[in-house]
Amino acid sequence: MNVAVDVTIVPIGVGVSLSSYVAACEKVFAEAGLKSVLHASGTDIEGEWDEVFGAIKRCHEVVHGMGAPRISATIKLSTRTDRKQSNEDKIQSVNSKLKAAGK
Amino acid sequence: MNVAVDVTIVPIGVGVSLSSYVAACEKVFAEAGLKSVLHASGTDIEGEWDEVFGAIKRCHEVVHGMGAPRISATIKLSTRTDRKQSNEDKIQSVNSKLKAAGK
Amino acid sequence: MNVAVDVTIVPIGVGVSLSSYVAACEKVFAEAGLKSVLHASGTDIEGEWDEVFGAIKRCHEVVHGMGAPRISATIKLSTRTDRKQSNEDKIQSVNSKLKAAGK
Amino acid sequence: MNVAVDVTIVPIGVGVSLSSYVAACEKVFAEAGLKSVLHASGTDIEGEWDEVFGAIKRCHEVVHGMGAPRISATIKLSTRTDRKQSNEDKIQSVNSKLKAAGK
Repeated sequence: MNVAVDVTIVPIGVGVSLSSYVAACEKVFAEAGLKSVLHASGTDIEGEWDEVFGAIKRCHEVVHGMGAPRISATIKLSTRTDRKQSNEDKIQSVNSKLKAAGK
Repeated sequence: MNVAVDVTIVPIGVGVSLSSYVAACEKVFAEAGLKSVLHASGTDIEGEWDEVFGAIKRCHEVVHGMGAPRISATIKLSTRTDRKQSNEDKIQSVNSKLKAAGK
Repeated sequence: MNVAVDVTIVPIGVGVSLSSYVAACEKVFAEAGLKSVLHASGTDIEGEWDEVFGAIKRCHEVVHGMGAPRISATIKLSTRTDRKQSNEDKIQSVNSKLKAAGK
Repeated sequence: MNVAVDVTIVPIGVGVSLSSYVAACEKVFAEAGLKSVLHASGTDIEGEWDEVFGAIKRCHEVVHGMGAPRISATIKLSTRTDRKQSNEDKIQSVNSKLKAAGK
């Protein structure tokens, strides 16, 4: 089962600067060979369910290993069985609707 | 690694009544032996990472099997390495703060 | 427009103990006269859109005022125009499906 | 108070194709003069709290007006009082950490 997720990691108890923890997870996602795109408030990832959630678990382990005693995360996920649709397709689909509407 | 999650499942393409799909997932969580509490906009679950996410995957499979071509879900999750804290502890902790504040 | 939300507040930069901040927001929601129920990973609130989001804004202001330099929050929200459905109705609806299924 | 949000709108009861509803909200955000970036599973928006949440409310009204009887949405939001940080700054900050780590 393919899944598209958007993951936001918030390490707690390590101060206000979180970018090095986010960077560590980006590295985990890349090493897992997953297609991922960082955006302002999370990372969009797509792939096989077990690989995607395995990488998210690894990200938690790595961030705890860096000294964060607590992590709060939010994952939005989407699965569909009717057809394949990549993350790029989704953005294209919205943009083509905007174009058709003369935007 | 223990994890506390709050899962919200939104089946898409099956009309506006979603409770039978939510009930099917409640059944999955119970059958997995996980401690879970249904609330107005999701289900709080706690347990071992692999068991919790295995049950969420099974929930997606079951809901697709019931005819939903697309599922959007939101998972809030929390892991901590500093100490054990159950979901009940968390609620107690807030309530004791409210009591101390004379509420 | 009525809205049902589930709000999770994560103050950043104030250590790992967050319950006093959550308690402060519970107080804000109660003072706003909103129906709210605390659960393990958030607070379910229902009411008029402007009142609900006004209270969430007030919660952010209060938590910043308590010394948190940064807040990450997650809000799940639901609006519907086909019929009125309270948070209690939603839980009942799932439970009646579970009962009908002999669970 | 400035806020950075990531909004995901899921119209329910209108079939599986959701892009025209997402496009309608993109139009709302643009008309509100807000800085927003569409990504694979949501839209990142930054601005003054009241303007941002006013636009999200308008998005719900527009999507209901297009015929969706029910909408489920997820909003991740971030406020900070210690310093100004744009959405672009956040992405830069992570990327510079990745570069420093030789990625």
